[in-house]
Amino acid sequence: MRIGMLTGGGDCPGLNAVIRAVTKSLIRQCGAEVIGIEDGFLGLIERRVRPLGWDEVSGILATGGTILGTSNTASPFAWRGRDVAAEVVAYQRELGLDALVTIGGDGTMTMAARLGEVGGVPMVGVPKTIDNDIAGCERSFGFDTAVATVTEALERVETTGQSHGRVMIVETMGRYAGWIALEAGLAGAADVILLPEIDFDLERVAAVCRERHARRRATLICIAEGARPVGGTLTVERAVAGSPDPIRLGGVAHLLRERLQPRVDAEVRATVLGHVQRGGSPTPFDRVLATQYGNEAAHLLRRGQFGRMVTLQDGRLASVPLAAVAGQNRRVPLDHPLLVCAREIGVCLGEAG
Amino acid sequence: MRIGMLTGGGDCPGLNAVIRAVTKSLIRQCGAEVIGIEDGFLGLIERRVRPLGWDEVSGILATGGTILGTSNTASPFAWRGRDVAAEVVAYQRELGLDALVTIGGDGTMTMAARLGEVGGVPMVGVPKTIDNDIAGCERSFGFDTAVATVTEALERVETTGQSHGRVMIVETMGRYAGWIALEAGLAGAADVILLPEIDFDLERVAAVCRERHARRRATLICIAEGARPVGGTLTVERAVAGSPDPIRLGGVAHLLRERLQPRVDAEVRATVLGHVQRGGSPTPFDRVLATQYGNEAAHLLRRGQFGRMVTLQDGRLASVPLAAVAGQNRRVPLDHPLLVCAREIGVCLGEAG
Amino acid sequence: MRIGMLTGGGDCPGLNAVIRAVTKSLIRQCGAEVIGIEDGFLGLIERRVRPLGWDEVSGILATGGTILGTSNTASPFAWRGRDVAAEVVAYQRELGLDALVTIGGDGTMTMAARLGEVGGVPMVGVPKTIDNDIAGCERSFGFDTAVATVTEALERVETTGQSHGRVMIVETMGRYAGWIALEAGLAGAADVILLPEIDFDLERVAAVCRERHARRRATLICIAEGARPVGGTLTVERAVAGSPDPIRLGGVAHLLRERLQPRVDAEVRATVLGHVQRGGSPTPFDRVLATQYGNEAAHLLRRGQFGRMVTLQDGRLASVPLAAVAGQNRRVPLDHPLLVCAREIGVCLGEAG
Amino acid sequence: MRIGMLTGGGDCPGLNAVIRAVTKSLIRQCGAEVIGIEDGFLGLIERRVRPLGWDEVSGILATGGTILGTSNTASPFAWRGRDVAAEVVAYQRELGLDALVTIGGDGTMTMAARLGEVGGVPMVGVPKTIDNDIAGCERSFGFDTAVATVTEALERVETTGQSHGRVMIVETMGRYAGWIALEAGLAGAADVILLPEIDFDLERVAAVCRERHARRRATLICIAEGARPVGGTLTVERAVAGSPDPIRLGGVAHLLRERLQPRVDAEVRATVLGHVQRGGSPTPFDRVLATQYGNEAAHLLRRGQFGRMVTLQDGRLASVPLAAVAGQNRRVPLDHPLLVCAREIGVCLGEAG
Repeated sequence: MRIGMLTGGGDCPGLNAVIRAVTKSLIRQCGAEVIGIEDGFLGLIERRVRPLGWDEVSGILATGGTILGTSNTASPFAWRGRDVAAEVVAYQRELGLDALVTIGGDGTMTMAARLGEVGGVPMVGVPKTIDNDIAGCERSFGFDTAVATVTEALERVETTGQSHGRVMIVETMGRYAGWIALEAGLAGAADVILLPEIDFDLERVAAVCRERHARRRATLICIAEGARPVGGTLTVERAVAGSPDPIRLGGVAHLLRERLQPRVDAEVRATVLGHVQRGGSPTPFDRVLATQYGNEAAHLLRRGQFGRMVTLQDGRLASVPLAAVAGQNRRVPLDHPLLVCAREIGVCLGEAG
Repeated sequence: MRIGMLTGGGDCPGLNAVIRAVTKSLIRQCGAEVIGIEDGFLGLIERRVRPLGWDEVSGILATGGTILGTSNTASPFAWRGRDVAAEVVAYQRELGLDALVTIGGDGTMTMAARLGEVGGVPMVGVPKTIDNDIAGCERSFGFDTAVATVTEALERVETTGQSHGRVMIVETMGRYAGWIALEAGLAGAADVILLPEIDFDLERVAAVCRERHARRRATLICIAEGARPVGGTLTVERAVAGSPDPIRLGGVAHLLRERLQPRVDAEVRATVLGHVQRGGSPTPFDRVLATQYGNEAAHLLRRGQFGRMVTLQDGRLASVPLAAVAGQNRRVPLDHPLLVCAREIGVCLGEAG
Repeated sequence: MRIGMLTGGGDCPGLNAVIRAVTKSLIRQCGAEVIGIEDGFLGLIERRVRPLGWDEVSGILATGGTILGTSNTASPFAWRGRDVAAEVVAYQRELGLDALVTIGGDGTMTMAARLGEVGGVPMVGVPKTIDNDIAGCERSFGFDTAVATVTEALERVETTGQSHGRVMIVETMGRYAGWIALEAGLAGAADVILLPEIDFDLERVAAVCRERHARRRATLICIAEGARPVGGTLTVERAVAGSPDPIRLGGVAHLLRERLQPRVDAEVRATVLGHVQRGGSPTPFDRVLATQYGNEAAHLLRRGQFGRMVTLQDGRLASVPLAAVAGQNRRVPLDHPLLVCAREIGVCLGEAG
Repeated sequence: MRIGMLTGGGDCPGLNAVIRAVTKSLIRQCGAEVIGIEDGFLGLIERRVRPLGWDEVSGILATGGTILGTSNTASPFAWRGRDVAAEVVAYQRELGLDALVTIGGDGTMTMAARLGEVGGVPMVGVPKTIDNDIAGCERSFGFDTAVATVTEALERVETTGQSHGRVMIVETMGRYAGWIALEAGLAGAADVILLPEIDFDLERVAAVCRERHARRRATLICIAEGARPVGGTLTVERAVAGSPDPIRLGGVAHLLRERLQPRVDAEVRATVLGHVQRGGSPTPFDRVLATQYGNEAAHLLRRGQFGRMVTLQDGRLASVPLAAVAGQNRRVPLDHPLLVCAREIGVCLGEAG
C-alpha cells in the first residue's frame, strides 16, 4: 500500500500532528509506504515529493505550520494558464499511489475528489479550518489554538483599556463565520462581541461604551473581520485622488473605531490581529484532536472508505461523504447555546436593544 | 429569589468562571440576589457569607482558584465531632435561601442534596473535577487546564531527556482514572503512557526504553499516580525501624524509576508534578466551558429543576439527576477511542506484548 | 510622612509592581502613609485620590496596567484650556503631601518636577517606557515583556511563513528607538531587522528575500514603526478626494509590503502588532526589575534625595538628577554590541551591501 | 580554521542559541569550519562528531536542550576505568582542530583547559549554569528561563493556597546558591524565601504562617533545595529496617512540611519542581544573552584569546581567564541588593526576628 499525503490552503496549527498520526498509524497498522507531496497540489505539478517514515514525523507534533508546505493557489487542473491535469494524473500513476490523504479546506478536498475521479486515485479528507466553519464538523483542529491566541490578545489589550479607561477594539479572523470572535470573546471577557452572523446596531454598541464609561469602566470589543453594521456596507476601500488603486483601510476594527469615536467620550483604539492567529504551536487540545483525525483518516484508508472526510459529530469521531459538505459554510446559528449563553450573562452582541 | 452558592472540595481552574456566570445570569435574567458562602460548608457552619453582585464577579473569569474559598473537610452534618445540621438548617432559613448552587465533586453534591432534604433548600449542582472522572459528564472544566500544564511539563522534561539520552518519568494526578495522563501523554508525545485502568508490564516498559536507547533516543513516560504494575501492589509506604510512622516515598514515579533503572542502560529520572496541576488561570477552553456550566445552572434554577447536576453529553449541555451519578467514577474504558488511537500510533500503554 | 504616588503616560507592564514595592517599602521601613492619585495628574485636578495600604497592593504584582489609572493628556498646569496649577498646588497642600512619587516617561516627570518647584512638593521619579529609550537608564521595566510578546508573535508568524514560503513582515513599536525590534528580532530569529536608527536600503532587503526564496526559505522581517527607507519619506497618510481627513495607512509594515511585493516572487504579508505590545502581565524579569525600582524610589524618599530618577547603570541600581535626562532619547548606538552581534551572525539590518 | 564545539554537564535552555551563534558567526566572519562533538567529551572518546553548517543550526534558536547532546559523567582523561587521554588527543589531531569551544560548567571547562595543555588544542569557554552561580559571571543564560518556570509554578500553587487557606511550599533547584529561589520568589510574590546562604529559623517561618493564617491569608514559601534550618542537619535520607539502602525523602520541601505542620493550624503542602526547571524553550531574554555569548566566543577565537571564558560584568560582555573562576561558586552575598530589597518590602528570609 502506497499512500500520498498533501496539505492545501492556508496553514493551521495541528497540520503536523495530522501528518504524524496518519504516517505512524499507517506504518504501524499495515506497513504502508507514505509519500509526502510538497506544497499542496504544486508538488504534484512540479514533481516534488519525499518519503515520510517514522523519523521524518517524530518530533513534529507540537510544531506549527506544515512540514510538507502548502499552497493556496495551485490547482491540479490549471496552473499558470496551463491544463496540468494529465501530467498530474501521470505523475500519480508513476508514484504508484493507492490513495491520497488530503488535509485542507473545502476547496482543496473538492479538487482532490475530482482528481480521484479523473485519475483513479481515491482520496480521504481531513478538514482544516482555523475558522471552525466546515459543514458537518463540530470542531476542527487549529481553532482552539486560534481562540487561545485571540484570548491572550484580548487580555493584553484589556489591561491598557482599564488603565486608560478606553474602548478597545480587537479584530479577529472570521469572514463568514464568527466562531473565533464568539469563543475568544467569551474567554477574554469581551463586553461586546460582533459577528458576521448578526449585523450590529452601531448606536447600541456606542450606548454600551457610554454606559460603561460613565461607571469608569473600559469597554472591550471583539469583532470578527466579517461583521458589519445594520443596513451598512463594509467600505474597507476608498478611492484616492490621482491614484489608480484604492486604499485599503486596515480592517473593520479601524472602521468601527472611526464611527464609534464621535459617539463616545472615551478614547477608542483598534487592533487587527492578523496572521498571528493562524501560526504557532497547537494547544494540547488541538494536538489530541488532530492526532485523532489523522488516525481516523488511516482507519478510512484501511477500510477503503474513500471520498469521505473525517469529522466530529455529537462529540465523537465520524466521517461524512465529501459531497455532503462541499461548498457549504457552517455559520453560528442564532440560537446556538454559546450565543444564548453570551446574551444571558450580559454580553452585548450588537443587537438593537 | 435568593440563591446561595458554595464551592467544595479541592480547587480547580474555572471555579470563578462558574461563579461569575451563575451570578451574572441570575441577576440579568431574573434579578435574583446571590449569596456567596465562604469556604464550602464551613461558611454555613461558621456563618460566613457575603453578597455577590455584578462588581464582585467582574474581572474574575481568568483567575485560578475560587473567590469564595473552599474546604475539603467540612461537612454540614458533623464538624469537629459535633452534629451541626440543625444550626446549618437554621442559618439557611435565616438567610432566606430559595436554592443552593453547589459547585463541587461527588461528595460535596451528595451532602448538599441531603441537606436540601433535611432543611428544605433545594440544590442544583455543577460538577468539578480536575480528573475528568465524574460519571455522566463527558468533559469537566479544569481538565483542559490540567492537561495543558502537564503537557508543558512533558515538553520541558523531554528536552532534558533528549540532550542526555535519558528515560524521563513524569507523574500526573489521577488516582482512579487516567484521563489526564492519557490526554497529556498524547499531547506531550509520550512514548509510554501508564494508567490506573491498565496494570502495566514492567518488562514491556523496560523493553521499550532499551529499544529506544539502542537507537539513541530518549524515552518519555507519562504515568498517572494510580497506575500499578501487573500483579503488583503499590508500596509507596515503608515502615522505618524505630519510627511509629512509615515513610511515604515520593510517588509512583519514583517507584517506577527504582525498578526500571536496573533494567535499562540509560539514566532514569522521575518528576512528580503535584499541586501545580490544579492551580493557575483556566485555559480559554475551560473558561468557555465553565461559563456555559454556570449559565446552565442558572437555567435549572429558573425552571425549578432541582436535585440535578449540569453535565455535557454527546458534546451538548444537559443535566442528570444527582442520584444517577452519586458514588460513581468515570474511568477510561479500555475501548475508548483515545486509547485505541494511542495504541495505533505506537504509544506503549504498558500492555504485555 | 505622607507620600503621594501617580502613574502618567501610556500604560506599561510592571507599573503595579512599582506601586506595590513603593508602598510596602514605605510602610514597612518608615510607617509612611501612601496616597494613590488616580489617572495621573487628572487625579490632582479632579481631586480623586485614595489611600494605598498593604491590602490594596497585595496581589497586584503580576497584573498588567496600573491600579491607579493613568492619563496621557492631563497636565497639572493646563487642563481643558484652563490654568489649573493653583488648584493643584492647593489640593496637594490639603492632602499634606511631603513628596510625590511619579512613575512615568520624560514628560510626566518633567511636569512633576516643575510642579514641585511651584508648589513645594518635591518628587522622586521612576522611569517608565516600553521602548527602553529613556536617557540614562539601561533597562526599563515593561521592555522585557514587550520583547517577549513580539518574539511570540514572530514565532507564530514564522510558521506561516515557512509553510507558504512567504516573506512575513511584523511591525513593532518604536518610533524613535529600535530596541524592541532589535531584541525581539534577535530572539525571534528574524532574518531582517529594520530600526529607526538605520535607514534601510529597500533593494538590499529585497535581495535578501529573493536569495532566501531561491533556497525555498521564508523570510522574517521585524520592523520598528519608525524605520524608514534611505532617502525616503514615510508617507503613512494620503489625502482622499472629497474628504477633509487624510487616510492613515496601517503602518510602515504595510508600506514596506507594498514596495517589496513587486520586487520578490514570494508572497509578502504584513502584521502590525499594535496595542498588544504594552499590555498583559509583566514577565518575571520585569516584576523583579520594577520591584527593585520601586524599593529604590523609597530609598531616595527616605534619604530626601529629591528631583532624581531611579535608574539602572552598569547593571546596578542608581539614580540621576532629572535635569540630566529630560528631553533626551536613548537611541540604539550604531556600535552597540547587540547591533554588532546581529550583523556578525548574519542578520540583515537593511544596510546597503 | 577548524573549530570543535561541545556541550558538557547538565542541559540548560539556551545551549542551542550558543551553538547557533558560534557557528553562524565563525562561518560568516572567517569562513571557519565548525565540527560538532556529540555528547560532551564522550564524542571525543567514542569518535562521534558531525559538521555544523548554516542549515544544521537554522531553526534551533528557540529549542530547549542541546542538539549536540551532553554528558555529565564522561571525562577526557578517564572513562570506564581506562585512561583515554592519549586517544582523545590523537582524535583531536586527526580532526585537525585549531581550537575547542566548550559550553559547560566549571568542571567541563577545567577539563577542556587541561586537555588543551596536554593535547595542544586551546579552548574558549562559554559558562552554562541554570543556577547562575558561576564565579565572575553576573548572569548566565538559562537562568531567566528557570526563574520563569518556577515563577509560573508559584503562581499556580498560590491559587490553590488562597482557595484553601493553606501554606504552600515550592522547592526549587539551588544546592549551593539561592539565585533561582530568590528571583523566582520575588517574581512569584512568595511570602517566605529560604536560601542556602541563610540558615532559616523554623520558628520564625512558622510565626509568619500563623500570623497570615490568623488574617485568613495563605502563605507561599519558596525554598531552594540547599536551604537548611539553623543548627540543623539536612536529613533527607533515613535508614530502613531490613534494607541495605536508606530511603531518600523527596526533598527539603517535604522535610520542611513535616516540621511546619505541627506548628501551624493551616494545612501545609509541598511541591518539588525538579527537572522541569532545566528544560523547555529559552525565554527571549535568554535567547538574546546566549546569542551574545556565542558571538563573543567567536570573537575570542578570532583574536586568539584562548583559555578564557565569556562573561557578563557590570552589564557588559567581557571575558575572564579560566583559572580565575575555576572551582569557585558565586553565592548570594548577604548584602546583595535583591536580598535587601526582599527584606525591605516585607519578605521573610527566615532570619530570626
